[in-house]
Amino acid sequence: MNKINCFFNPKSVAVIGASRDQKKIGHIVFRNFVEGRFKGKVFPVNPKTKKLLGRKCYTNVTQIKEKIDLAVISIPAEFAPKALEECGKKRIPAVVIVSGGFKEVGEDELEDRLKKIAKRYGIRIIGPNCLGIFDPSTGVDMIFLPRYKLERPKEGGISFITQSGAVGSVVLDWMARKGYKISKFVSYGNAVDVDEADLMEHLAEDKKTKVICAYFEGVREGRKFLNVTKKISGVKPIIILKGGTTEAGNKAISSHTGSLAGSFEVYTAAFKQAGVLQADDMEELFGFARTLSTLSRPKGNRVQIITDGGGFGVLLSDNIVENGLTLAKMKKETTERLRKKMPSYVVLKNPIDLTGDADVERYREALDAALADPNVDMIGLIVLLQVPRLGGDIVQTITNAFKSSEKPIFVISAGGEYTEVLKKSLEDFGIPTFSYTQNAAKAMRVLYEFSEEAEEYEKRKRR
Amino acid sequence: MNKINCFFNPKSVAVIGASRDQKKIGHIVFRNFVEGRFKGKVFPVNPKTKKLLGRKCYTNVTQIKEKIDLAVISIPAEFAPKALEECGKKRIPAVVIVSGGFKEVGEDELEDRLKKIAKRYGIRIIGPNCLGIFDPSTGVDMIFLPRYKLERPKEGGISFITQSGAVGSVVLDWMARKGYKISKFVSYGNAVDVDEADLMEHLAEDKKTKVICAYFEGVREGRKFLNVTKKISGVKPIIILKGGTTEAGNKAISSHTGSLAGSFEVYTAAFKQAGVLQADDMEELFGFARTLSTLSRPKGNRVQIITDGGGFGVLLSDNIVENGLTLAKMKKETTERLRKKMPSYVVLKNPIDLTGDADVERYREALDAALADPNVDMIGLIVLLQVPRLGGDIVQTITNAFKSSEKPIFVISAGGEYTEVLKKSLEDFGIPTFSYTQNAAKAMRVLYEFSEEAEEYEKRKRR
Repeated sequence: MNKINCFFNPKSVAVIGASRDQKKIGHIVFRNFVEGRFKGKVFPVNPKTKKLLGRKCYTNVTQIKEKIDLAVISIPAEFAPKALEECGKKRIPAVVIVSGGFKEVGEDELEDRLKKIAKRYGIRIIGPNCLGIFDPSTGVDMIFLPRYKLERPKEGGISFITQSGAVGSVVLDWMARKGYKISKFVSYGNAVDVDEADLMEHLAEDKKTKVICAYFEGVREGRKFLNVTKKISGVKPIIILKGGTTEAGNKAISSHTGSLAGSFEVYTAAFKQAGVLQADDMEELFGFARTLSTLSRPKGNRVQIITDGGGFGVLLSDNIVENGLTLAKMKKETTERLRKKMPSYVVLKNPIDLTGDADVERYREALDAALADPNVDMIGLIVLLQVPRLGGDIVQTITNAFKSSEKPIFVISAGGEYTEVLKKSLEDFGIPTFSYTQNAAKAMRVLYEFSEEAEEYEKRKRR
Repeated sequence: MNKINCFFNPKSVAVIGASRDQKKIGHIVFRNFVEGRFKGKVFPVNPKTKKLLGRKCYTNVTQIKEKIDLAVISIPAEFAPKALEECGKKRIPAVVIVSGGFKEVGEDELEDRLKKIAKRYGIRIIGPNCLGIFDPSTGVDMIFLPRYKLERPKEGGISFITQSGAVGSVVLDWMARKGYKISKFVSYGNAVDVDEADLMEHLAEDKKTKVICAYFEGVREGRKFLNVTKKISGVKPIIILKGGTTEAGNKAISSHTGSLAGSFEVYTAAFKQAGVLQADDMEELFGFARTLSTLSRPKGNRVQIITDGGGFGVLLSDNIVENGLTLAKMKKETTERLRKKMPSYVVLKNPIDLTGDADVERYREALDAALADPNVDMIGLIVLLQVPRLGGDIVQTITNAFKSSEKPIFVISAGGEYTEVLKKSLEDFGIPTFSYTQNAAKAMRVLYEFSEEAEEYEKRKRR
């Protein structure tokens, strides 16, 4: 088995530092494996304990008879090298070190020792100083923060890797709340061995991952990162949020990680060259990720707007043009056919304004027409649910349209509880929804950019 | 009584078109007045009905003996002029016409008749083609959309006026869900008489309104609008989201309102000259509004960041600089004093990184220090609640700090249910919270801009 694969899909796991103390990280990680959805074998390692959650406890990993695919180390930093050495002797291919106390606090020498041991035994390491891995499909879950404070997202197509554990914990919790779905989550901390490029390379091959997202402040090896991302970006979208876009941000980085982040201009140029999509903030990152993980590639940049509120149609028109896209012009036949089915006051231009007494039937007609029209590449579907005649069955209408066509549909809807419930059912079905016209238009732009990128890539390949 | 005041604070209201049919707008508006928090008298007007919700129904307003401060007209457009004429005879000073079917559908002549009647009798009109008014302090509530679909926000300092009814309905529903608090809401539709400038002039004098927000696609009288906003903007912040910033948006406007919106460049220049703050989208608008309605004016643009997650500190540092603000440098004595109270690994620069084992006590010390330090004008307080040792009592710590000092505190916190509950309790207390560092930094910029504007204004006044 590929060693990196052992991190996500191990058959057996040893938790070094598993503890009786329920507050200890080692306890929580061990309990996650035992009580969660992980199907493999789990072995606690702790010389001071005989049994843990009904399982025999081992003094060290070499005493376990069975083969171990993955070890998680959660003990004080000073003891980590010895534990890692034992993992090497036991021929464990993959080790996650969640413990902190290394380079990030000036203990460079201690971290170097880990590196040497890993090299000697051919161990792949994630960490140290990280949250580790969450993979809902295999039940690997090392997240040690209190569960009532940090929910887990459902299984889906977005993979997220992050240098910062704090950013990672927020992202998981947030995705869960919003109903965004995850494939693989990795907080890789100091990256003594496995780095962002290694992880991206692995995720590029992973069938469940539709989009690769990353937060980091710097890359470990520029050349390697460029080569890897260049290979991937035409096939699978990569979205990066880079911390340290200003001198002030870079200063903040150097005081919290002890490393230099490098000039943002250099990064931006490199990202562009590698076909990597850049997000300006977390909100953009997830808007893009949801779009790219669920919607098909559009054939062009012509957007048809359908709305039941004039004002929102105006705002979306503005935002579409600001993002370099164009408003579609539907064929004459399409509008003529629609005209017969709609009241006279319904505006059949772009935007199509179904007006405040719109019902589901009107939406269905307009959607079907726009999906069938060859002059339309994408649809901006504004659904303001506050109007009296529009019922919850709009969800069914939208999901039907979504199933019937490859054309990307961007649903924009905002409001209170009632609206949120219907939006969440769309998200559950895999349809991204937006609260603001600007965010939807940005996501349209990025989907179009990726589809151009992918087409270029395929052309190059055919040559 | 000032006639415009009658719209918001009438002692007696007539609802023309009040109906037995529960689906009719006239029924809903009448019921809102009768069953809601409105304390004045309410009279139904409908020639076909004798009694409505236990009250005597009148054939027309002239038959009501008592004085009427406000009439709401909700009958087919063609009958509106006659009803308005009767309001004139009855000397009703203020009339809201919610009915549509005028200029927006090409019935310019019908709308002109309303104008003439209003002029003849000295009636002030809001509408036609609008949602009308919502004022939680007096219980005036004309919102006729189904209540389960459209919640009502609580009473507070944000006033919102809008040309578009659809935008208005979304905004109300949304504010309710997010816990944002409203002073006065007006959807003024076609603005046959009372326009955005009149409303702003009124809101400027209204003590309950701390911030005036507006969505519109064009102003009726440019010169008047400029004069009014210039007078207000140094005293009370005005935030505008303008639809139609592009040619495409302007085309959309002309097909849904039948009017020309004018060049965006002209508007932007005029807004700037008048000291009006512009928002790029709804999200910005409300970020700004909450900030300006609750936080005091900062003395300068120096921001101290306090965080428990390094990555978020980096992102906020970037965003602060991108928005033209600077990172504060606390006094040496402050950091020395803090140093004694904090573990060695806590970073006491800007950002102050309390790290992932931060507790409430550490936040309290850092907050108190930053609030007391003369080199700090504003505080960016990042609170990632996922960390194990940080409890719900952080809410009390933040509200105490908020009460103890005039320095604006911007709380940034993101995550799932647990986080949202704590954020909502801060919002209820009047402390704006943000999910994204970028939004918080933009709000800081706008608060600083307004404080500069206000200072300029005061200087001019003293001269």
